[in-house]
Amino acid sequence: MRDFARDTSALALNTATLGHNLDGHGMGWPVERVIDACAERGFGGIVFWRREIGARAQEIGDRVRAAGMRVDGLCRTPYLTGREAGTEAEVRASIDMAAGLGAPVLTIVTGGTEPGTLGLEPSLDRLAERVAAHADYAAGQGVALALEPLNPMFGGNRTVLFTLRDALEVCDRIGAPNLGVAVDVYHVWWDRTLAATLREARGRVLGYHLCDWLEDTAHMLLDRGMMGDGVADLKALRAAVEGAGYTGPCEVEVFSKHWWQRDPAEVLDVIVERFRTVC
Amino acid sequence: MRDFARDTSALALNTATLGHNLDGHGMGWPVERVIDACAERGFGGIVFWRREIGARAQEIGDRVRAAGMRVDGLCRTPYLTGREAGTEAEVRASIDMAAGLGAPVLTIVTGGTEPGTLGLEPSLDRLAERVAAHADYAAGQGVALALEPLNPMFGGNRTVLFTLRDALEVCDRIGAPNLGVAVDVYHVWWDRTLAATLREARGRVLGYHLCDWLEDTAHMLLDRGMMGDGVADLKALRAAVEGAGYTGPCEVEVFSKHWWQRDPAEVLDVIVERFRTVC
Repeated sequence: MRDFARDTSALALNTATLGHNLDGHGMGWPVERVIDACAERGFGGIVFWRREIGARAQEIGDRVRAAGMRVDGLCRTPYLTGREAGTEAEVRASIDMAAGLGAPVLTIVTGGTEPGTLGLEPSLDRLAERVAAHADYAAGQGVALALEPLNPMFGGNRTVLFTLRDALEVCDRIGAPNLGVAVDVYHVWWDRTLAATLREARGRVLGYHLCDWLEDTAHMLLDRGMMGDGVADLKALRAAVEGAGYTGPCEVEVFSKHWWQRDPAEVLDVIVERFRTVC
Repeated sequence: MRDFARDTSALALNTATLGHNLDGHGMGWPVERVIDACAERGFGGIVFWRREIGARAQEIGDRVRAAGMRVDGLCRTPYLTGREAGTEAEVRASIDMAAGLGAPVLTIVTGGTEPGTLGLEPSLDRLAERVAAHADYAAGQGVALALEPLNPMFGGNRTVLFTLRDALEVCDRIGAPNLGVAVDVYHVWWDRTLAATLREARGRVLGYHLCDWLEDTAHMLLDRGMMGDGVADLKALRAAVEGAGYTGPCEVEVFSKHWWQRDPAEVLDVIVERFRTVC
């Protein structure tokens, strides 16, 4: 395993951890201030959300690189299934935005169950059809697509992929070289088949997301834990992910009303300390 | 598959669906009124919670049988793992209560992660140790124990079993003839490996719990759907459960602030109609 106590170059900030930098979510720091604060603390990269980028994709990407860091990814395509699915043009625009930023990976959260259907199969068919249709375009833009399974609490309106196995099966159906999976502690920590599935995912893990699962989770969306504050076995999870050959960024993504109320400078300090010691 | 359109003898009420009959949860009907209302509508059985029974186990069991129904089970042992785990005496008392009621099955919700540990293995070791210690006593009382896996949203403080596979593995470790599993729609509807796991669970399914997963689930605990109002494929799930040889009761368990506000007589009417048509 990589030695994070000495080397924080794999550490990336997912800006959701600071409330996406937006007023009303977190303290509303401008993107430039976030970039500088991460660079000062030795972060290796940043992952943005579309809402922060607007028409400034290339400018923001260049700013990150000028600060000596990477843009490690963009969150995320519009939903591809369910009642709130985005249009083809909207999905394509998110791919273009990732390319403009210079982000190598665009995450896919699938969206929910297709209207008028029961169970998962009709929605998975629709998902596979839409991902296949966009994977080729994304490849032409130099962007890989990462299917992210979500904790089963998010079934119905947010996802139709609940395990890494579910996500890999969609990858297998499509077979595109720029399609893989993202592994997020919050979503997978409970899955005792994860290590076995990861062994089959060799070369297809495109992201690893850090947070923790709090013993008493009070809110489905906004009560993620900072690494070390919960019950997930973070070292064992990373060992399994790295065992699948993953050597990429480890992106801290903590959606939390608690952490959003704290000074972003302090939050970033805590992240670096926890990354070095408990991840 | 059994024909529920014509025969409701498999239908059981889990009293949680009426707010456990208690003031402050639901409309607070006395146990006797619930029993009579179920019998009038052709329910085959009732599953109670400990808090309703007190010292009246045998009296309530006899009342159910006098009304022509079965007591199909008791919810549940105290937690066996985690910060809120019950004592050995408390677990034994819940077994005695099930025996007193004449309930053939006592459900186990495991409790959460053991204090001071990470991941699941230390908690699963503790769980297996405690279940093994009680299974023999339960057998002597004529009570079977059903391990119920919960939706992964309940990790941390409520369960260390997240899939039917997890629960079966604990059964395999212990090997007691009166130990099996309970399958609840709310907890397992999303699991695409369920049918395959059920094929290995032949003879070990001790309960099947009906509700639905709402497309927009607003609350982790108290927003379950009535059958037919959500996105779970209830007929496919029952086909898989019956494919494992299960011919026992189908117990309606809907924890829901919405349904708890409605007249219990109306709720019971809806249950019977949905049981006949969508389950």
